[in-house]
Amino acid sequence: MEIKNKIILAMDLLTIDGALEVGNSVINYLDTIKIGYPLALAEGLPSIGLVKDRFDCKIIADFKVADIPETNKKIADLTFKAGADAIIVHGFVGPDSVKACVDSAEEFGTEVFLLTEMSHPGASRFLQPAAEDIAVMGMEMGLKNYVAPSTKPDRLKKIREVVGKDSFIISPGVGVQGGDPNQTLEFADAIIVGRSIYSSEYPEEVVKSIVDSIKL
Amino acid sequence: MEIKNKIILAMDLLTIDGALEVGNSVINYLDTIKIGYPLALAEGLPSIGLVKDRFDCKIIADFKVADIPETNKKIADLTFKAGADAIIVHGFVGPDSVKACVDSAEEFGTEVFLLTEMSHPGASRFLQPAAEDIAVMGMEMGLKNYVAPSTKPDRLKKIREVVGKDSFIISPGVGVQGGDPNQTLEFADAIIVGRSIYSSEYPEEVVKSIVDSIKL
Repeated sequence: MEIKNKIILAMDLLTIDGALEVGNSVINYLDTIKIGYPLALAEGLPSIGLVKDRFDCKIIADFKVADIPETNKKIADLTFKAGADAIIVHGFVGPDSVKACVDSAEEFGTEVFLLTEMSHPGASRFLQPAAEDIAVMGMEMGLKNYVAPSTKPDRLKKIREVVGKDSFIISPGVGVQGGDPNQTLEFADAIIVGRSIYSSEYPEEVVKSIVDSIKL
Repeated sequence: MEIKNKIILAMDLLTIDGALEVGNSVINYLDTIKIGYPLALAEGLPSIGLVKDRFDCKIIADFKVADIPETNKKIADLTFKAGADAIIVHGFVGPDSVKACVDSAEEFGTEVFLLTEMSHPGASRFLQPAAEDIAVMGMEMGLKNYVAPSTKPDRLKKIREVVGKDSFIISPGVGVQGGDPNQTLEFADAIIVGRSIYSSEYPEEVVKSIVDSIKL
């Protein structure tokens, strides 16, 4: 996936009006927006198509899909039908559940990102010990896209070692959660920034300063 | 949670019309309906309130919530606001993520079910080895409600041993996926049945036969 300026905006807002306002401020600097369940549940799944059409941008649906294969397939089908270019899927639930989303993506000509590990403290209990094996599973399945946290650079580095230089890694947790853009981009292909941008009074300035600070 | 006839209907349909039709056929035999993302995404989150109001039943939102604490809180808040009586939450994302949903449930006077393990084959790779520890975490957190699979009776038994007799376990996978009602109810407090009911030409007959077969 080509991502302008290596920045993905995590649009974790609860209203489409708020999302469009933030989008308007920053869309000159980026072309990829991550939409999660907060917005999709509050405003409905059509909000994906709405944001996509308004900004002519790519949408990554961060639904962290984690159900049985039959249900994962239904979720992915609906999400791609709504206009998403990619969906983020949990690896912890196993290869058949992930494959159900891959099958859907193949039908729609879209992409799957495999979530290997997360940025919050609680992830250390079950997810972190499994993260490298989840990445190995992704490679066994031929997956090209991964999600790994910016807040744990050593872990991000490890995931990069497992998936190799030809895989594409996007990395959340930059900004409020503590991840550093340049440090993260040593191992990731793009950073995901949310609260630092959408909670700012001046989102455009924040994005511009991140773009300026990144050694592209 | 009190569950009539120990049966929860998993309403994994994609249209509210289909859901209401199936509900009409079987509502005399049950009072608890599980709604997952397929319906909530296809028809919007208000479908929870719609089904609840139409049948004056309890709704368990099977969203298998698996995000960072901040996002889990937003998802749970929206879900309870829409009328859900309980939400199903993944345990493998760690205690802080689960606690975010528990905090939301306390605010709304609703309940959280902790998912310890799942019924599909792929669950054996990462989830099953962690399942008992996830249940232990739930007990440490003072949780009372658990989800454990009917398709693996030995695993269900193990989870019951961990959470003790005072906890409440609901168990999916009964019917098409292979779980047996009576065997499951040796260790679970209620069974979750989906496809066997909603995919049948005669859903009422199917529910009636399950109720008749259960030694209540």
